[in-house]
Amino acid sequence: MSATPDSPVSTALLTDRYELTMLDAALHDGTASRRCVFELFSRRLSGGRRFGVVAGSGRLLSLLRDFRFGDDQLRFLRDARAVDAQTLAYLANWRFTGTITGYREGELYFPGSPILTVEGAFAEAVVLETLALSVLNHDSAVATAAARMSIAAGERPLAEMGSRRAGEHSAVAAARAAYIAGFGATSNLEAGRRWGIPTMGTAAHAWTLLHDTEEMAFRAQIEALGLDTTLLIDTYDIRQGVETAIRVAGTGLGGVRIDSGDLPIVAAEVRAQLDGLGATGTRITVTSDLDEYAIAALAASPVDAYGVGTSVVTGSGTPTAGLVYKLVARQDAAGSWIAVAKASADKASKGGRKSAFRTLDGGTATSETIVVADGFEHAPAAHDDARALQTVFVEEGDIVTAFEGAGGVAAARTHHAAVREELPVRALGLSRSDPAIPTVWVDQD
Amino acid sequence: MSATPDSPVSTALLTDRYELTMLDAALHDGTASRRCVFELFSRRLSGGRRFGVVAGSGRLLSLLRDFRFGDDQLRFLRDARAVDAQTLAYLANWRFTGTITGYREGELYFPGSPILTVEGAFAEAVVLETLALSVLNHDSAVATAAARMSIAAGERPLAEMGSRRAGEHSAVAAARAAYIAGFGATSNLEAGRRWGIPTMGTAAHAWTLLHDTEEMAFRAQIEALGLDTTLLIDTYDIRQGVETAIRVAGTGLGGVRIDSGDLPIVAAEVRAQLDGLGATGTRITVTSDLDEYAIAALAASPVDAYGVGTSVVTGSGTPTAGLVYKLVARQDAAGSWIAVAKASADKASKGGRKSAFRTLDGGTATSETIVVADGFEHAPAAHDDARALQTVFVEEGDIVTAFEGAGGVAAARTHHAAVREELPVRALGLSRSDPAIPTVWVDQD
Repeated sequence: MSATPDSPVSTALLTDRYELTMLDAALHDGTASRRCVFELFSRRLSGGRRFGVVAGSGRLLSLLRDFRFGDDQLRFLRDARAVDAQTLAYLANWRFTGTITGYREGELYFPGSPILTVEGAFAEAVVLETLALSVLNHDSAVATAAARMSIAAGERPLAEMGSRRAGEHSAVAAARAAYIAGFGATSNLEAGRRWGIPTMGTAAHAWTLLHDTEEMAFRAQIEALGLDTTLLIDTYDIRQGVETAIRVAGTGLGGVRIDSGDLPIVAAEVRAQLDGLGATGTRITVTSDLDEYAIAALAASPVDAYGVGTSVVTGSGTPTAGLVYKLVARQDAAGSWIAVAKASADKASKGGRKSAFRTLDGGTATSETIVVADGFEHAPAAHDDARALQTVFVEEGDIVTAFEGAGGVAAARTHHAAVREELPVRALGLSRSDPAIPTVWVDQD
Repeated sequence: MSATPDSPVSTALLTDRYELTMLDAALHDGTASRRCVFELFSRRLSGGRRFGVVAGSGRLLSLLRDFRFGDDQLRFLRDARAVDAQTLAYLANWRFTGTITGYREGELYFPGSPILTVEGAFAEAVVLETLALSVLNHDSAVATAAARMSIAAGERPLAEMGSRRAGEHSAVAAARAAYIAGFGATSNLEAGRRWGIPTMGTAAHAWTLLHDTEEMAFRAQIEALGLDTTLLIDTYDIRQGVETAIRVAGTGLGGVRIDSGDLPIVAAEVRAQLDGLGATGTRITVTSDLDEYAIAALAASPVDAYGVGTSVVTGSGTPTAGLVYKLVARQDAAGSWIAVAKASADKASKGGRKSAFRTLDGGTATSETIVVADGFEHAPAAHDDARALQTVFVEEGDIVTAFEGAGGVAAARTHHAAVREELPVRALGLSRSDPAIPTVWVDQD
C-alpha cells in the first residue's frame, strides 16, 4: 500500500467482505442507522490459560484513525461488485462517530470480560469487527504467552527474538505485546524505533563462520563492540569456545550465549568452566527453543538471561486468543434497546451491554464481576473493593486516550506489572487449568 | 510508517538488531566485503508434514525493493547506538547488488531444499536474514496447511476466512498463501485488491440479530444481494432457520451456511430438509472450526463448500515453517571459496552451495536430489527425468523475475497445482509421517 503523509495508508480493507455486504444490505433496508453495541470478548481462555493479557488496543486506535475508504479502496469495491453505488458513496465519507470503551492494555481478562465495547450506528460499528479482532487476537495471544514466560523467568531478564518466526509486521506487534507483558527487550529494530522498546543482539553463527577461526571472530567482535559484548560460543565445540572467549577477552567478558544443546547440563558446565577461568562475572544467556516450561526447568541452573523466539511470537501453542466480536444490543425501529444473542450454551455469550469490575480482597483479585445492564443506564458504581475495568478510548469518534508511541506502551507495561501483582498464587502455575478467578455474572434488569 | 510515492515505506528495520551489529563489526575488520552464500532451508518438515509448500518469495522481492535505510531508520540506529558513524554512512547507501535464486512460489520443499540462495558481500546478504525468514516462514506454514486442506476437500471449493485470527497484515499474506496452495477464495478484501484473489462473504450472525426477526433479516438480504446469496441459518434454531429461508427465498435460494453444531449430523439434516422442501439445488456451506481433519471427516457428508478460518491462518498447529537462513560458503581473504557449517548432526545443515532437482519416474516424484557443489562451478546439468528447482530471482541487484500483483500469484497457484500432481499417493495422507520423498545428497567436490 503506498501512501502520502496527507493520505496515510488505508486500513479499511483489512476487513472481511461480509462486513461490507451487511452494510450494503443495511443501507437498503434502513437498519444501517440502528444504534448497536458490539462487544469483543473471549468465551473461554484458549489453551487452558489461567488468565489472559489484553494487548493491541493502542495499535487498534492508531489503525482506526487510518480506516478510511480512499480512491484505491473504493475502486476495488466497485470493480469487485462487493457493494453498490449507494454504499460506495456512503463509504467515501465513512468515519467512526461512535464510542469505544475497553480494558487498558496490559490488563488481565477472563471468560466474558468485555475487553472492547463499540457503540454506534450498525454501519459504523459492524465494519470494525475484522480489524479489531485481528489486532487483539494476535497481540493478546502473544502477551498472554509472554506473561507466563515472564512469571517463569522470575527476576532474570527476558528478551524477545522471534521476529523470523512471525509475519514481518506481526513480528513488530509481537515485540510490543511481549514487552507489555514483562519482557525487557526485543531483537526487532522497528519495534525499537516505533515504540522505544529496548533492542538487543550481538552476533549469529554466521559471524563466526565468516571468519577463518573462531578466535578471529571473537577478537573482531570485541574490537568493534567492546568487552561487554556477548560472544556466541557454540558454533563448533562449546568447551573450546568458552576457552577461546576468555583467552581473547580476559575475565572481564560481558557474556556468552548458548544456542544449542541440553541447556541445564550445558549451562552448568559453562558456568563451572567460566568460574574456573576466573570469569565469575561473565553472564550466560541461553536462547535455544525456549518456552515457559523450558524456562521454568532452568530456574535452578546458572543462567543469567533468556532469549525467546518461536514460542513467544506464536503464543506458545495458542497463536490466536480466540476473541470474538458480537452484537449484544441494538435499538429497534422505535429507538428502544433490545439485548440480543445467538442461541448458545455458553454464559459468556449472553446479550446486553456489560460493565466489568475486578473484585479484590486485601489486594488479591477474587473475581471478574460482570454486570449485565440491559437497560443501558450508565455503569453502576464500583463495588467496594472493586476496580472498574473499562475506560473510554473513543468518544463520538474522537480518540480521548493517550495511546501512541513509547508512552502508551510504557504505561501498558507498568499497568500489567501492577495488576499481575493482584493475581492469586494459583494463577502463576503453568499447567492447563481453569481461570484463576471466577467470572461472576450479575443480571441487572 | 508513513511514506510518499517517491520514498516508499522502508522495510529495512524489520530486522533483528544483530544483523546490523555483525555488519558494523565486519566493516571494522574488513570481512564485510567477503562474498558469501546464505541458504534458506528447513532442517525437517515441522509438524510431521509429508511435504512443504513454498510461499512468500514474491512478497519478499517486493519488500526487498523497499529495503532502504532512510532518515527515520538511520536516526533511530544512531540514537539507539546500534551501529557507529561509519556504518551509518554505509547504510545510507545500502543496496543489494548480489544474486538471489530460489524455488518458485507454489513449489514443494523437503528437508534440506535450498528454497532461497542469497549470494553477495557479507554486508549485503547478512542483513536480509530476518526479513526473508519472517516472510517465508509465515507464508510457507500457511501454504503447507492450506495444501493439506485442499487435498482433504477434493473437488469441493474452499474459502479462507481467518483474517480475524491473524495479525492484520499477516492475514492478507495468509489469504495469498492459501490461494496459492489451492483455496479458491478469501474473505480478505485487501488480498483481493492487491493480488486479484476472489473475495467472498455474505452475512454474520449480527445481521440476523440486527433485525426484529430472522425472516426480516433474510428478506432484506435477498432484496439487497439477490436470490443467489447464502443465508446463515443457525442464529436461533437451525430447522426453523432452513424453513424460514426457503419460505422467504423459494426453492431457488443459492445457499445456506452452517457455522455451529456437529457438522456431519447437522449437514445431513439440513440437506434432507432442503430436499424435502424442494430446494435441491441450494448449496450447503459449513464454516465451524474446520481443519484438514474435520474436512476429511465431512467427505461423505452432503456439504458443497468449506470456509476455513483459524486453522489455515495459524498453519493448523504449525504456525511457522521452521526455515533457517545459514551461511554455507564464503570467500577467504585470498578469494577462495570455503564451505562452512556450524557443528551439527543434521545432514540438511551441511556446508557448501546446493543445487536441487526433483527426480521423477513416469511423472511421479521419487526424490529431492541435492547436489553439494563446493567448487562453485555452475549448477550441474539436470539429470534425465529430473527438474531443476531453482530459478534466478535477482541478478546483480536487479529483480529479473515477474512476481508482482495478480499475475505472480496466479502463476504460483498454477505451478502448485501442477507439482502437486507429481506427488506419490503416500504424500496425500494427513497423519504425521516422514517426508513423502527422500532427500538424496550428492557430494560433488
